[in-house]
Amino acid sequence: MFWQIFALFVSLLAFLVAAYFYRWVKALPTAEGNLGTIGDWIRAGAYTFLKTEYRVLLRFAGAVVVLILLFYPAPIWQGNFLDNITMALAYIAGTVLSGLAGWIGISIATIANVKSATAARQGLQTSFMAGFRGGAVMGLAVVGTSLSGASILYMLTRHSEIVLAFSFGASSLALFAKAGGGIFTKTADISADLTGKVELGIPEDDPRNPAVIADNVGDNVGDVAGMGADLFDSNIASIAAAIILAAPLGQVHLIFAFGSLGLLASIIGVLAVRVKPGGHPGKALNNGTYLTTVIFAALTLAATLLFQFEIRLWLATFIGLLSGTVIGFSSELFTSDTGKPVARVAEASQSGPAFTIITGFSYGLISTFPSILGIAIAAVASYKVAEPLGAGYALLGISLAAIGMLSIVGMIISNDAYGPIVDNARGLAEMGNLGDDVLEITDQLDSAGNTAKAITKGFAIGAAGLTVIALLAAFQEIVRSKTGEILSFSILDPVVFFGLMTGVAVPAVFSAMLMMGVGRNAERMVAEIHRQFTEIPGLRAGRPGVMPDYNRCIDIATIGAIKELIPAGLMAILVTLAVGFIGGVSAIGGFLAGNITSGLLLALLMSNSGGLWDNAKKYIEAGHFGGKGSEAHKAGVIGDTVGDPFKDTAGPSINTQVTVVSLVASLSASLFMAFSLLG
Amino acid sequence: MFWQIFALFVSLLAFLVAAYFYRWVKALPTAEGNLGTIGDWIRAGAYTFLKTEYRVLLRFAGAVVVLILLFYPAPIWQGNFLDNITMALAYIAGTVLSGLAGWIGISIATIANVKSATAARQGLQTSFMAGFRGGAVMGLAVVGTSLSGASILYMLTRHSEIVLAFSFGASSLALFAKAGGGIFTKTADISADLTGKVELGIPEDDPRNPAVIADNVGDNVGDVAGMGADLFDSNIASIAAAIILAAPLGQVHLIFAFGSLGLLASIIGVLAVRVKPGGHPGKALNNGTYLTTVIFAALTLAATLLFQFEIRLWLATFIGLLSGTVIGFSSELFTSDTGKPVARVAEASQSGPAFTIITGFSYGLISTFPSILGIAIAAVASYKVAEPLGAGYALLGISLAAIGMLSIVGMIISNDAYGPIVDNARGLAEMGNLGDDVLEITDQLDSAGNTAKAITKGFAIGAAGLTVIALLAAFQEIVRSKTGEILSFSILDPVVFFGLMTGVAVPAVFSAMLMMGVGRNAERMVAEIHRQFTEIPGLRAGRPGVMPDYNRCIDIATIGAIKELIPAGLMAILVTLAVGFIGGVSAIGGFLAGNITSGLLLALLMSNSGGLWDNAKKYIEAGHFGGKGSEAHKAGVIGDTVGDPFKDTAGPSINTQVTVVSLVASLSASLFMAFSLLG
Repeated sequence: MFWQIFALFVSLLAFLVAAYFYRWVKALPTAEGNLGTIGDWIRAGAYTFLKTEYRVLLRFAGAVVVLILLFYPAPIWQGNFLDNITMALAYIAGTVLSGLAGWIGISIATIANVKSATAARQGLQTSFMAGFRGGAVMGLAVVGTSLSGASILYMLTRHSEIVLAFSFGASSLALFAKAGGGIFTKTADISADLTGKVELGIPEDDPRNPAVIADNVGDNVGDVAGMGADLFDSNIASIAAAIILAAPLGQVHLIFAFGSLGLLASIIGVLAVRVKPGGHPGKALNNGTYLTTVIFAALTLAATLLFQFEIRLWLATFIGLLSGTVIGFSSELFTSDTGKPVARVAEASQSGPAFTIITGFSYGLISTFPSILGIAIAAVASYKVAEPLGAGYALLGISLAAIGMLSIVGMIISNDAYGPIVDNARGLAEMGNLGDDVLEITDQLDSAGNTAKAITKGFAIGAAGLTVIALLAAFQEIVRSKTGEILSFSILDPVVFFGLMTGVAVPAVFSAMLMMGVGRNAERMVAEIHRQFTEIPGLRAGRPGVMPDYNRCIDIATIGAIKELIPAGLMAILVTLAVGFIGGVSAIGGFLAGNITSGLLLALLMSNSGGLWDNAKKYIEAGHFGGKGSEAHKAGVIGDTVGDPFKDTAGPSINTQVTVVSLVASLSASLFMAFSLLG
Repeated sequence: MFWQIFALFVSLLAFLVAAYFYRWVKALPTAEGNLGTIGDWIRAGAYTFLKTEYRVLLRFAGAVVVLILLFYPAPIWQGNFLDNITMALAYIAGTVLSGLAGWIGISIATIANVKSATAARQGLQTSFMAGFRGGAVMGLAVVGTSLSGASILYMLTRHSEIVLAFSFGASSLALFAKAGGGIFTKTADISADLTGKVELGIPEDDPRNPAVIADNVGDNVGDVAGMGADLFDSNIASIAAAIILAAPLGQVHLIFAFGSLGLLASIIGVLAVRVKPGGHPGKALNNGTYLTTVIFAALTLAATLLFQFEIRLWLATFIGLLSGTVIGFSSELFTSDTGKPVARVAEASQSGPAFTIITGFSYGLISTFPSILGIAIAAVASYKVAEPLGAGYALLGISLAAIGMLSIVGMIISNDAYGPIVDNARGLAEMGNLGDDVLEITDQLDSAGNTAKAITKGFAIGAAGLTVIALLAAFQEIVRSKTGEILSFSILDPVVFFGLMTGVAVPAVFSAMLMMGVGRNAERMVAEIHRQFTEIPGLRAGRPGVMPDYNRCIDIATIGAIKELIPAGLMAILVTLAVGFIGGVSAIGGFLAGNITSGLLLALLMSNSGGLWDNAKKYIEAGHFGGKGSEAHKAGVIGDTVGDPFKDTAGPSINTQVTVVSLVASLSASLFMAFSLLG
């Protein structure tokens, strides 16, 4: 119990530091003029989205709770109804805590953006700190709530499947937050660009554009709340899988020990981040990540020696940590604006947009290789290193690699949430007319955010990959604990193969549904913008005092996002249940493996090629191959628009889809064993 | 032995019918004027490519022969050197026969194009028959040589692995023919379009364009020789896999029986194809396919009853046949110009090229689902239907499904080779100034070819998928026959998982390398075209008597195609060997499964979205959403250009890559068992 209580203690520390950051950011001054008003609009818009999302989620979660009460962990006519109630409560706790973390994140992000813009008038340092500490509130809140939630639940119930239900609750929210937020943000972004930059030729954040506030809201709901929920979800899922595999071996304390030390390392890392006068904000972010990694490795090694944990299990954890860094690094290599791929895509753009697309897509395909290989090697190495400890330890090794990879997630989320805050700050500086000097600083901060984002995105995908492998192992363990049978999931078993093939197709269909949703939603919003330009006199000309109806655009993006997301989410869940009820647990084993592999492939392809197109456009804008307004630039803009839903809607949502599906499968194991056509 | 001799007899019949068609086509008149000359240029260009390709292949095959003599089936210091010699001879036979079939195909296709163009002056009927019978020569030659080659080899050696080496020989050639031809054809196509249509605004087949002959050559080498080699390869591989699985059960006669009856059905089907005056050529092609399918089902059922074959094995074959039809049908659904996807992509093009790409790509992702599900169901159903016959029969069932799917391949290749012939006829009619009435007819024939192509492409991918599953089963059987151990390829065995992940990444990297090769090669060719326009006086203005240097463009496309293809092919083969020597046979099991799944996903995605973009452009050109010259049309052209390397280079080459890799793995089984790091 010592380590669970230690986890609670570290979580408390995280909350205290988060609260300190919150007050620190809030105490910064807000510029006079209309900056505060615009900030309030963004804030109100973000809350509008969250409220709508949570209202729909409430209905969805209500339906799931009824299903849990009826069927999980066992149908009520077979099992103990008290188990069903406990599981339902754990599920509710998962959604509520994850929702709370998202709410806190949005709450601080929509303050920090104004503060960061204001502080930019005095220079880079405070402006950077406002962005970073705003993001860190989210980072620490997410990891603190997930770790303390898991500790309390496990201490109360000592039942590993309960933690799974908690994780599924978080996953349900993540599906709404990440996929819904992803559709929202790209709907607004694309509509604003199409009507503003392309049709009218006005700048990105021009306040005449009815979609401009929605665009800034989108950064917050997509990248702050969405990414936070996604990593909350992966973090809990990795803990849940590890607990299931550790419980029969009496090693649960290790999970909480390493998880707590990871959070502690993140707290220290976050507190240490500073940027010197004249320093480089991107380096400051990356140094924070490296520092956290080193501290985590040192702390866990010390604990292992001090408390006589198995050194092999520490090694498995360390392998995960290392491979996370490699994956992040290789994602950066392919999308960095100083690398060959970006320069080549920019060069190819001179021959027209088709070449921008073909070249970027090709590099995206190639970029999947190092990451996939990294995950494969991490899985084999962590398995092999733990194998000599005895039966069951090998798979625990894989799940510890996932824990290791996610250990520094507090720092990762902080870096990630920094991005949209300073992006917003840039927009506010433009809309609030803070002048060119301020814009220069916010541009610099924004660019650092983009670089950090490439790394954190690769990291999030890698972590989800390893976590889901651990969940597959956990699934096998659940079946073993219930029937004593060890499933081998042999590829040449046709039922496993059937699952494998179906699993491969699901992320493809899921991501397509989301991207088509963005397209349809953007059509609706563009129509609304055209209506406003026609019907509001003086808006197009920019007559002083005439304002667009920002809220209508926010409403369209919100309602459309939820509407487009639900069929995609349901498809994934229903196909999982169909495969399980047709092919039984063997088919599910294949299904999860297929889902992971194709999910990783598509997520990496889409995130990396999207990032690559974005940076290739910026590379051209920086004056290469003709610069702004050249044919190459036009082609680059088209590539960037294709990349938008790739990298911000479909790509990162696949993580969530894969995790949700794995949790649904694990929770339904008993049902699949009892009722299946071929199984 | 009866059925092997029957196979020889039917093959002979196929050769006779092919010879009859050859003479029939050759006896048709050639229009006076320069048509014959242009036809000769195309013919000479195609032979130039073939000669260069075969010369490089000779060196590649020479190296492989040395490796076979040294290491296969067993290292010379361990095994019987006579086996190595036999295997090397079988390998050589595979390359030579496949090369011969390709040569015959090119030889007739480059006659039939001129004849078809000429005949179009008299109307649709003879023009259609020239195209179709020209294609049928290729179809019958391919199946005849592959079937008779396999029969003779098996009769002489009674050794199933020898057939595998024969298949690997065919595969080596297919890799060069399909991937090399795919790079050639798209290099020429894109370069001709960029310099002709886009820069100069001259029509597609304008003889001033130095790339125009290369473009017509490309249709022949990519779609006739390439697709023929690809299906030759799949056909032999399915026979080889089935023989390996059938041999221990004493069921080899069945493979030759069903294979021969498939060829017989194709012969009857091909002879029956006619188009009535005023009839629809597309329907004539499809009716031929349906007729062949029905005849094959009837013949095999009759043989099963008459010779008392196991009815369950017939059923497994029938399931494969059926699922091939379903896959072809669903590919057509997604790419047909009367379907919703094409209309939606055309509609989305009104908002700009980014929406053309996003929407088409999304439909491409969704289109993978029915085909993948069809293959999965075919695999399970054929396994389950054969399972009650006893151990070993279940996997034989899967391999029979592959045989069933490929049974009508003679007809499929005929339909497929028809496309480039009538496409060429259209170009010849334009270049030879045969007038608008003729162009109208050739356009109609060309459009039928495009529809047939959608079906045959889906079919080819599906057949390769099932074949490679059969090869995976054959791999397991090879290991069992050598060690007695039945490998289970359990997904949770980390070595299998490592293979699975690596296998997933290979088709992604392979297809990216080919597409980037097209881009680089097109850059070289565009530079050459610009040079000619600058340095040859009067060429750009079209002064009579001034001619471009067509041969330089053909040389560039040829040399570039070979140069770009070799690294991609080597990468796939070397990664396979690396996985095998690191992880042993278990890793290879996972590797092949990963390769099949991601290969199917990417091949279907690329082929279908490419076909969709092509037809969406044509849909706009037919007058929808503003028609030719509108913004939607410009966007449609960009989509089509992106789709070109997707559907004609990368997508279909993935089949060949997957087959080559599977054969390398199967042939190297003994080596992996003897030498591997983790195995």
